[in-house]
Amino acid sequence: MKTITIITLMMISATLFPQKKDELASHIINMEKAALERWNKGDVYGYLEIYADDVVYFDPMLKKRMDGLDKLTAYYKPLQGLINVSGYEMIDPLVQAVDNMAILTFNLRSFQDDKEFYWNCTEAYRKEKDGKWKIIQSHWSIPAPKKEE
Amino acid sequence: MKTITIITLMMISATLFPQKKDELASHIINMEKAALERWNKGDVYGYLEIYADDVVYFDPMLKKRMDGLDKLTAYYKPLQGLINVSGYEMIDPLVQAVDNMAILTFNLRSFQDDKEFYWNCTEAYRKEKDGKWKIIQSHWSIPAPKKEE
Repeated sequence: MKTITIITLMMISATLFPQKKDELASHIINMEKAALERWNKGDVYGYLEIYADDVVYFDPMLKKRMDGLDKLTAYYKPLQGLINVSGYEMIDPLVQAVDNMAILTFNLRSFQDDKEFYWNCTEAYRKEKDGKWKIIQSHWSIPAPKKEE
Repeated sequence: MKTITIITLMMISATLFPQKKDELASHIINMEKAALERWNKGDVYGYLEIYADDVVYFDPMLKKRMDGLDKLTAYYKPLQGLINVSGYEMIDPLVQAVDNMAILTFNLRSFQDDKEFYWNCTEAYRKEKDGKWKIIQSHWSIPAPKKEE
């Protein structure tokens, strides 16, 4: 009985506070996918809930870096309920990590209104004092067009 | 005499192995500026020398993320001697750091052939085993045009 309790506690602990490199990579990728899937359904709070207060942000619709969760919340809020992405493929997600910080990079292919869109993405996740990981830097940009191959 | 030696050693140590947050931020920003200034004069090795072997890279001329120093060296080498940027302004550089990783973000304004170019940039620096900092992730992209204000 004791053994089962310990194993259960270890499993919960591994989910909440991933330690090993592979575990951490899966945890970070799963966090990103969960936020992205909420975004695709029009729920901007998937990301807003995992941005740190000091998050900084780039996207190609902005003229410069946007600083802080307050500004990013004001930027995202008007989009709530308006996004409808029917599907996505996260291409080659990679996590480069040290103890308390992890850089996730990937290319994204997403489907909207019978069109395909491609993105470059870099997310920097930091382990906060409570052991949870939050995004402190998010950079979205547009890669060169596929057709120029 | 001993005191002077100790102070000198501390100063050298602070330059090579910055500890405090402000010192680290200055160190990272200075590394980036040094590489950028060599780039602007046509020397691509300023960056290549501070990229880690496992560096990953995005820019708007590429269709997807480029992985590894070997590929990035092959990508940069043909540009050696061909770049001539006459001036630049690094706008609002910010360093978000933990012990062994630091995220540098900034906007860049650069001047070439009487034209202005604007960039978004995210560099992830990691402290290597020898105590030196290297770039493990570099993301360059184009912000929204200034004229649309």
